[in-house]
Amino acid sequence: MINIVLHEPEMPANTGNIGRTCVAAGARLHLIEPLGFHINEKMVKRAGLDYWDKLDVTVYDNYEDFLEKNPGAKIYMATTKAPHTYCDVRYEDDCYIMFGKESAGIPEDILVQHPDTAIRIPMIGDIRSLNLSNSVAIVLYEALRQHDFADMRLHGHLRNYEWSE
Amino acid sequence: MINIVLHEPEMPANTGNIGRTCVAAGARLHLIEPLGFHINEKMVKRAGLDYWDKLDVTVYDNYEDFLEKNPGAKIYMATTKAPHTYCDVRYEDDCYIMFGKESAGIPEDILVQHPDTAIRIPMIGDIRSLNLSNSVAIVLYEALRQHDFADMRLHGHLRNYEWSE
Repeated sequence: MINIVLHEPEMPANTGNIGRTCVAAGARLHLIEPLGFHINEKMVKRAGLDYWDKLDVTVYDNYEDFLEKNPGAKIYMATTKAPHTYCDVRYEDDCYIMFGKESAGIPEDILVQHPDTAIRIPMIGDIRSLNLSNSVAIVLYEALRQHDFADMRLHGHLRNYEWSE
Repeated sequence: MINIVLHEPEMPANTGNIGRTCVAAGARLHLIEPLGFHINEKMVKRAGLDYWDKLDVTVYDNYEDFLEKNPGAKIYMATTKAPHTYCDVRYEDDCYIMFGKESAGIPEDILVQHPDTAIRIPMIGDIRSLNLSNSVAIVLYEALRQHDFADMRLHGHLRNYEWSE
């Protein structure tokens, strides 16, 4: 199972959308405080629609609290400053993929602790960045693709639709 | 260059986000009317931030108008009902990837014309679907990944950041 970690997310609609994606993808969500909203805020639930209640989500006081409660976690750090793209690495089962806040990304003092597992999403030119929830969706589904969507089959829920007119 | 087609999108924030992703990815956006909003609506520009003006976007009266103005287009159709996943196909350069409206997807009468190029994103269980803008991001970046992000290098804008402390 893949773990998504949001470090101090600011926008409730993004976190709601990411929660929805995590439920659809069978991923766990980890939120590191301070958050820019209350976890039960209407906007979170609205963006997550009725899926929020099905989400496996844990909230931590700070980054140290997260590290203590997830000992030995293999953490990939999504940043615009990484030499490797998100497709260059092989995502282990049970790894963690961390994303920083919308306005500033992951703080440098955390990034420098993980130079080998920093990853970036290729983008054109002077674009500042993709939307946070889209960035999570892109990297999470690349990790699932590498595992041939095995997590979904383990859940026994993956439906293979037959094409019908 | 990859083309993203939205068939009758309803939510301005989604289309705005998708516009932002298209600019970041060097993709063209095609919008088929009726839209659930005015193209200049504040919510579209807000979600697209200041990137909307850099977007290569075309609006069509209806699906027939789109087909007439893009003769010979190779169109992939994203739907929850497809037997193939979005990773099973090879996206040609200059192909089109089409997504239906948030509430209903692509109409059946269009889908049945393209049974071999229908694609779905694997999801767990009884989840209705991913958010539209996240779905676009996932499939678009898979197409770019297959081309080793060549479009971005052609633009001469892809920056290879060196890791620095």
